[in-house]
Amino acid sequence: MIIRPHRHWFVRLFAWHGSVLPGIWFRLTLNLMMSVIAILCLDWYETLGIKLTLAPFSLLGVSIAVFLGFRNSVCFGRFIEARMFWGNLLIACRTLQRLALAISPAEAPRVMSLLLAFCYSLKHQLRRTDAHEDMRRYLGDEADEILTRRSPTNFIELQLSNWLAVQRRNGNLSDILYAHIDDSINQLSQVLGGCERLASMPIPFAYGLLLHRTVYLFCTLLPFALVPDLHYMTPLVSVFIAYTFLSLDTLAEELEMPFGLANNHLPLDAMCTNIEINLREMNLEQELPDTPQPDRHYRLT
Amino acid sequence: MIIRPHRHWFVRLFAWHGSVLPGIWFRLTLNLMMSVIAILCLDWYETLGIKLTLAPFSLLGVSIAVFLGFRNSVCFGRFIEARMFWGNLLIACRTLQRLALAISPAEAPRVMSLLLAFCYSLKHQLRRTDAHEDMRRYLGDEADEILTRRSPTNFIELQLSNWLAVQRRNGNLSDILYAHIDDSINQLSQVLGGCERLASMPIPFAYGLLLHRTVYLFCTLLPFALVPDLHYMTPLVSVFIAYTFLSLDTLAEELEMPFGLANNHLPLDAMCTNIEINLREMNLEQELPDTPQPDRHYRLT
Amino acid sequence: MIIRPHRHWFVRLFAWHGSVLPGIWFRLTLNLMMSVIAILCLDWYETLGIKLTLAPFSLLGVSIAVFLGFRNSVCFGRFIEARMFWGNLLIACRTLQRLALAISPAEAPRVMSLLLAFCYSLKHQLRRTDAHEDMRRYLGDEADEILTRRSPTNFIELQLSNWLAVQRRNGNLSDILYAHIDDSINQLSQVLGGCERLASMPIPFAYGLLLHRTVYLFCTLLPFALVPDLHYMTPLVSVFIAYTFLSLDTLAEELEMPFGLANNHLPLDAMCTNIEINLREMNLEQELPDTPQPDRHYRLT
Amino acid sequence: MIIRPHRHWFVRLFAWHGSVLPGIWFRLTLNLMMSVIAILCLDWYETLGIKLTLAPFSLLGVSIAVFLGFRNSVCFGRFIEARMFWGNLLIACRTLQRLALAISPAEAPRVMSLLLAFCYSLKHQLRRTDAHEDMRRYLGDEADEILTRRSPTNFIELQLSNWLAVQRRNGNLSDILYAHIDDSINQLSQVLGGCERLASMPIPFAYGLLLHRTVYLFCTLLPFALVPDLHYMTPLVSVFIAYTFLSLDTLAEELEMPFGLANNHLPLDAMCTNIEINLREMNLEQELPDTPQPDRHYRLT
Amino acid sequence: MIIRPHRHWFVRLFAWHGSVLPGIWFRLTLNLMMSVIAILCLDWYETLGIKLTLAPFSLLGVSIAVFLGFRNSVCFGRFIEARMFWGNLLIACRTLQRLALAISPAEAPRVMSLLLAFCYSLKHQLRRTDAHEDMRRYLGDEADEILTRRSPTNFIELQLSNWLAVQRRNGNLSDILYAHIDDSINQLSQVLGGCERLASMPIPFAYGLLLHRTVYLFCTLLPFALVPDLHYMTPLVSVFIAYTFLSLDTLAEELEMPFGLANNHLPLDAMCTNIEINLREMNLEQELPDTPQPDRHYRLT
Repeated sequence: MIIRPHRHWFVRLFAWHGSVLPGIWFRLTLNLMMSVIAILCLDWYETLGIKLTLAPFSLLGVSIAVFLGFRNSVCFGRFIEARMFWGNLLIACRTLQRLALAISPAEAPRVMSLLLAFCYSLKHQLRRTDAHEDMRRYLGDEADEILTRRSPTNFIELQLSNWLAVQRRNGNLSDILYAHIDDSINQLSQVLGGCERLASMPIPFAYGLLLHRTVYLFCTLLPFALVPDLHYMTPLVSVFIAYTFLSLDTLAEELEMPFGLANNHLPLDAMCTNIEINLREMNLEQELPDTPQPDRHYRLT
Repeated sequence: MIIRPHRHWFVRLFAWHGSVLPGIWFRLTLNLMMSVIAILCLDWYETLGIKLTLAPFSLLGVSIAVFLGFRNSVCFGRFIEARMFWGNLLIACRTLQRLALAISPAEAPRVMSLLLAFCYSLKHQLRRTDAHEDMRRYLGDEADEILTRRSPTNFIELQLSNWLAVQRRNGNLSDILYAHIDDSINQLSQVLGGCERLASMPIPFAYGLLLHRTVYLFCTLLPFALVPDLHYMTPLVSVFIAYTFLSLDTLAEELEMPFGLANNHLPLDAMCTNIEINLREMNLEQELPDTPQPDRHYRLT
Repeated sequence: MIIRPHRHWFVRLFAWHGSVLPGIWFRLTLNLMMSVIAILCLDWYETLGIKLTLAPFSLLGVSIAVFLGFRNSVCFGRFIEARMFWGNLLIACRTLQRLALAISPAEAPRVMSLLLAFCYSLKHQLRRTDAHEDMRRYLGDEADEILTRRSPTNFIELQLSNWLAVQRRNGNLSDILYAHIDDSINQLSQVLGGCERLASMPIPFAYGLLLHRTVYLFCTLLPFALVPDLHYMTPLVSVFIAYTFLSLDTLAEELEMPFGLANNHLPLDAMCTNIEINLREMNLEQELPDTPQPDRHYRLT
Repeated sequence: MIIRPHRHWFVRLFAWHGSVLPGIWFRLTLNLMMSVIAILCLDWYETLGIKLTLAPFSLLGVSIAVFLGFRNSVCFGRFIEARMFWGNLLIACRTLQRLALAISPAEAPRVMSLLLAFCYSLKHQLRRTDAHEDMRRYLGDEADEILTRRSPTNFIELQLSNWLAVQRRNGNLSDILYAHIDDSINQLSQVLGGCERLASMPIPFAYGLLLHRTVYLFCTLLPFALVPDLHYMTPLVSVFIAYTFLSLDTLAEELEMPFGLANNHLPLDAMCTNIEINLREMNLEQELPDTPQPDRHYRLT
Repeated sequence: MIIRPHRHWFVRLFAWHGSVLPGIWFRLTLNLMMSVIAILCLDWYETLGIKLTLAPFSLLGVSIAVFLGFRNSVCFGRFIEARMFWGNLLIACRTLQRLALAISPAEAPRVMSLLLAFCYSLKHQLRRTDAHEDMRRYLGDEADEILTRRSPTNFIELQLSNWLAVQRRNGNLSDILYAHIDDSINQLSQVLGGCERLASMPIPFAYGLLLHRTVYLFCTLLPFALVPDLHYMTPLVSVFIAYTFLSLDTLAEELEMPFGLANNHLPLDAMCTNIEINLREMNLEQELPDTPQPDRHYRLT
């Protein structure tokens, strides 16, 4: 189990690192400049007879909050679903290992190799990184052939299925146990298919576009609506509101595709290591990888 | 796995193509004209003693945002459910192919043909397009007979079931394996029935109607409520608010029926090709279809 | 598959039929009269020193919108759940028919009769209509005896179960296949139990009551709060807001019990016919019922 | 199936009985008194220089509505989950009875007794009422011994399991059928465990406390914020707003623990009778209990 | 079943203990001081020409309420999921015990020891407390060896699996019953994997950070926005609003990690004891542990 230290609320409040999402700095500065412009132009701007009041922005702001809340919960839902798939992967690996140990202990190491290859291959497929090194560690020469395939992860599952079929054909397994173990291989299939679905299907582009634009335009116009009332306080309040809205928008976007390497993405490396520790320990191996630890910025990859 | 390039937020902000949903242009122009009329008539309108203030519109706007949020999440839920069915279709096809390869490899190509025919037939049924060409590719002469049926997709599943029954009757399959494989055919049934349910059952008409009208009337009256305060700024703010509300309403409507060919619909063509690549590769075929690529507008069909 | 024509947004906007829920006319007229009274009494009313302002109504209106949104999504959830049960019914019927055809084709017509009797009986039970005619069509003389039961639909399922038990006892079915087919009969059980649950258990009465009253009182008092600001525009805005709130309240109430014959209820007749077409076609019967078509008001029953 | 008459909206509007939740009267009266005090003290209060305006209350009111909506949907979710468990109980009982009739009809009455004992025992356990009378009706002398246990309902399930084990040991059941029937006994287990979970685990106390206090303080201070604007209308609007908020709070609290005997709780008596009617009818018994009817206040217990 | 006394609303309102979450006192005092400063500085502050008005805070407050509502429901969802896992643990333990009693009664005590060891080990793993004492009680000398493992809970499950495998190898269990019982061991696996997932994966850090800061800054600035209108009433209203927002934020944080020992965390001790009572009673043991009782502050650990 990966353990993360808990941070006190006070530390949280003033945490610097990773506290503002990187992409936001530029946009907050822009908003600040807009506020300053609004203050400087106020006199000239009021003589123009053109004015913005807060009332329509209030209506718009609350509406945007509702829609942003919707997008947020959708993107967070994807993050949670991705996490759940990797949780199920751990469970399925343990179950298959357990069954291999219970029914044909001699074959357990082979099953473990295939399971670990499956996990690492899935990680590389989702992150679009090179899987050769990891694959060779678990599959030896088989690795290169499998990696020429378009769906290497699915191919590794096929090897597992073939192994099971051979056991059945050799008479080591009754049909009942074959079907029972195959149910757990199907769990791997569910995880693979689910992760592929998340990775290949973002939420409809028009949503992101719509909210992106609405939030930006809202934040850009806001200083002009605030300035008649707040005057010198405009920058503070404007940047504060912009910070809230832009952060949520950016965070939602980050969570939408949770398999990357950003701060708030899933720590797939740590999860793969965790599965490896579990399976090796079940095989009573002595040398286990180290438990993954977050770095001093509380990050895991 | 279908991969979509990621777009930078800046590109998103100013993306032209597909940025405003086509059906909206007309309505935004209408709203703009209303705003201009409101400005022009302001003096005459104020002498009438008839006035609209923003306060009731604020109340109404937030209420509409809540209801629109509801409709939005319902329609998006349908989109997600449809996507999930097609994800499950990939998983079920892989599983059936895997089981065929494991238990009776000689029959695997026949199973593949039936599975692919099932997928393409489902696509054509949902889009109400002509399935003859695709069906003949996979089923040969059987295709024409099957396509005379009212539910051709269900009939293809029946062929699969018959194939399995023959295997059992011939003694190639024990009852246990028969039941085990039949469970995966049931997965196809779930996908078929689920997609039909989505396609034949829109959300209650009164919802769309109610929100449609409310949003339109709201956007039409809005300029008259904004003009006393904002004067020359009315068109900007009014079109902005109308853009937000109308886009969400239109987008929700588009997502309600996700099996079409619009920008934000599901890329069923690409998904069928993806399943074909997977199954052919599992059968170790050498010539695979190309991986589907989005066009330069990031669209897949 | 039942197909419904799509209506253009413009047609939707001005659709007359079914556009305002019948029960609402009276209440909207009442609201209009209230608005007129508010305008007429304005002078006298202001001298009284009694006044209503919009601010507390704004607070109340948004709160009611939140609560109405909640009730709405609960009632809509019931509608969706009911639709899902009938979708599962189609899937379960197809599966049972498919298994009957695969394992004992000679018995398939008997299974079909029982399945169709089950569907029609469920429809009549949920709508509390007379099932004699439909039952006799599928069950002949058995029908009358079954209809004397308190739970005829459950009894038909019992006949199916008995049929299966006889097959097993005769040695036509191994225990494995018996258990496998019985799983699909359990699906029918789930549908029956689920539909009965929805039909016999409305949402707690106090919810409907609370929202009903709050919405009514709100709409009744609203004109008096609007009139000081809006004067002659009061009726327009007041009826508009009342239309939004009352429609949603009424629609929610209609969807709460989705098995009736109202406009927005489930088209159980069409669904039963659809199941019948599917099953008869699977049995290669030549004469199939017509595909159900919506009438010119886009309605299906 | 339990059928409840439908009430017309007009009747609903003026329904007296059960229309205001009992616990609320006192608090509404308190609120009314506060309003009167606010009116009486208005002059003196304004000279103090202490004033409350509606603006912060508007912000607070909407926030409370959002949080109340959250609590409401959580508590309602518990109610729905409880209802679903009892719906599943009916389904599981029917399935077990059906399987008993199909596989060993001679044993069906014994199974029925145990199932009915299970249902009634669960009811009494959840309501913490005395189960002796009901238990003796179904289990005879066994009842007293079972009721000395800490978990009598679980013990009855154990009897069912024992009965099944005896059948297997006697060779009446193959292992396959044993496992198949045991799956349905597991359904009973799910229901029992789920109901116990709901009954023993309220939502975190701090939630109720927090909202309780916030709602009360809000309602108490509200008249003072309304009185400068509304003057003599304060009591009407204040009591109206308080009615909405307090009712929802109280209703949520009532639904949180749905197994009691209050108006909006689950009619466990009727549900038990309904299960009894179903099972006895499946055993072709002639004398069935009466279908439970709501009393003239539409209540079922 | 654990039973908790019900508290009257009046008691709730004035309950002292645990009524305000401990971490909040300091922050509320801070807010109070801010309000006092705002009142004292009002004259000087108004001469500065710097002013804050309530309108932008109203917009911000409602937005924060929406986002806080989102975070709240996410964290509460984790709490509920954790509770559900422990509910399923009870169900799985009962089922495994039931099956052991039905199929090989002589082995039931050994199964019970392993199940109890599993539950206590999971509790200690989640709370990161020392498991030696509890483990030795159930496993004797085996305990020390198991506790040297990195995943002791998983190891105990492996023992259960081994025990089952031995039974199968000895011919005491057919393959069918083996697979059937193994399904219930998989339930334990689901619980273990699910709890580990919750414990090792907090919600993305940026969420907590974002809302934390926004809520704090909002509460800090609020008095300055309230003071021009409310004057001496500022502290009351400001602390009231701060109490609502800060409590919800803090409560959400507490519920996010529900396996600890805080007031609103899950009573894992009581749950373990409850499982022990159930299993021992099923084995007809005479001496059962006492039913866990909440202390006088209604707390269970």
